[in-house]
Amino acid sequence: MSADENFAALGLNLPPAPKPLGVYKPLLIDGKHCYVSGHGTVQDDGTLIVGRVGDHLTQEEAKIAAQQVGLAILSTLKTNLGSLNRVKRVIKVLGMVNCVPEFEKHPFVINGCSELFAKVWGEDLGIGVRSAVGMGSLPGNIPVEIEALFELNDEA
Amino acid sequence: MSADENFAALGLNLPPAPKPLGVYKPLLIDGKHCYVSGHGTVQDDGTLIVGRVGDHLTQEEAKIAAQQVGLAILSTLKTNLGSLNRVKRVIKVLGMVNCVPEFEKHPFVINGCSELFAKVWGEDLGIGVRSAVGMGSLPGNIPVEIEALFELNDEA
Amino acid sequence: MSADENFAALGLNLPPAPKPLGVYKPLLIDGKHCYVSGHGTVQDDGTLIVGRVGDHLTQEEAKIAAQQVGLAILSTLKTNLGSLNRVKRVIKVLGMVNCVPEFEKHPFVINGCSELFAKVWGEDLGIGVRSAVGMGSLPGNIPVEIEALFELNDEA
Repeated sequence: MSADENFAALGLNLPPAPKPLGVYKPLLIDGKHCYVSGHGTVQDDGTLIVGRVGDHLTQEEAKIAAQQVGLAILSTLKTNLGSLNRVKRVIKVLGMVNCVPEFEKHPFVINGCSELFAKVWGEDLGIGVRSAVGMGSLPGNIPVEIEALFELNDEA
Repeated sequence: MSADENFAALGLNLPPAPKPLGVYKPLLIDGKHCYVSGHGTVQDDGTLIVGRVGDHLTQEEAKIAAQQVGLAILSTLKTNLGSLNRVKRVIKVLGMVNCVPEFEKHPFVINGCSELFAKVWGEDLGIGVRSAVGMGSLPGNIPVEIEALFELNDEA
Repeated sequence: MSADENFAALGLNLPPAPKPLGVYKPLLIDGKHCYVSGHGTVQDDGTLIVGRVGDHLTQEEAKIAAQQVGLAILSTLKTNLGSLNRVKRVIKVLGMVNCVPEFEKHPFVINGCSELFAKVWGEDLGIGVRSAVGMGSLPGNIPVEIEALFELNDEA
């Protein structure tokens, strides 16, 4: 099964590809590497999931928010590359959680994104290195922001 | 116009290239890629702009601080590479803001650096991917720290 | 002296290579580049050093914790690559400190890792670019998390 087929089988919607909130590109191709800007919790109607984890959001709600960030990244990939099949594998994910200082379950939260990528590109190619960490704050008070680096397939 | 000419036309000063505060290199070349360490708010006299955004600094002051970080990065590039023309394009910027937990305008702040890079290398090549996020604290209580990845031109 | 010999001469123990706490790989090879996931303060018995810097831990204790993170990274490299000699040089380190908002000595703390790498691969090749920054929180309340990028030698 291809990545596009894997994604279709999940029965999930892609939100609209988020427009930059500042002076940056959502995605940049450098040879066989595809860099993706920090993405937020864009929902199907274009609005953002907001709130601090451990205060307004539970860790289970935050994990769902991280999946939504993953969907926003997939939307950016599909919009810019034409197909998720263009991605060969996940190299790196930086998962940033906007949470209270006492929060300790960042890996659990970011798994919401990582498990999505593993379903799309498979348990080997869909899983790369990762850091999952706690921020002091995030733009617009979103609970999760994720940036990523992918390797592209040779074929155009 | 070249990057050096573009910069000269801005009428801005380059601060002294900051010396490492720890065990790291300000800049590292890896083939056609140029990695730049996290830079702070170095001013022309070598002192740092300090203070937490949303507390000691307004977002407008923080945006100016982010431009100053951009100038410090340009100074490191020029000092180590000889010319800003050696840089072909901006690949990636990680903009880190030292702010109160309620702060939401990180992209606005980091635009202070990104708009500078866009003026130096142009609206396409001067703009890469980016994350703009809120830290719990930064070294010496600087309001902004930025690390970056550039692609170099083939010609030496 | 080789990196393995340099490390042996330090008389330090390698903790067990940490197992992923989420959906990620500890290390990923991409051509001549070796990406390493965010590592924590794994001790020889597998337990973690925990506590917030500036609250539960002094900066001196935190620097030792950062060295322990460096040892965990070395353990992951050795376990996955077979030898520290496979690494040609350090390209990049992102050092993240879980500390109180007033903390200012992040570079001092992360030097605990950077000085270790400099002893293993030498003052030139063992030192790359770096950012040392303050997080709002870290998984399991560890005081330091570090991710890194290495360049590998050509020879397998």
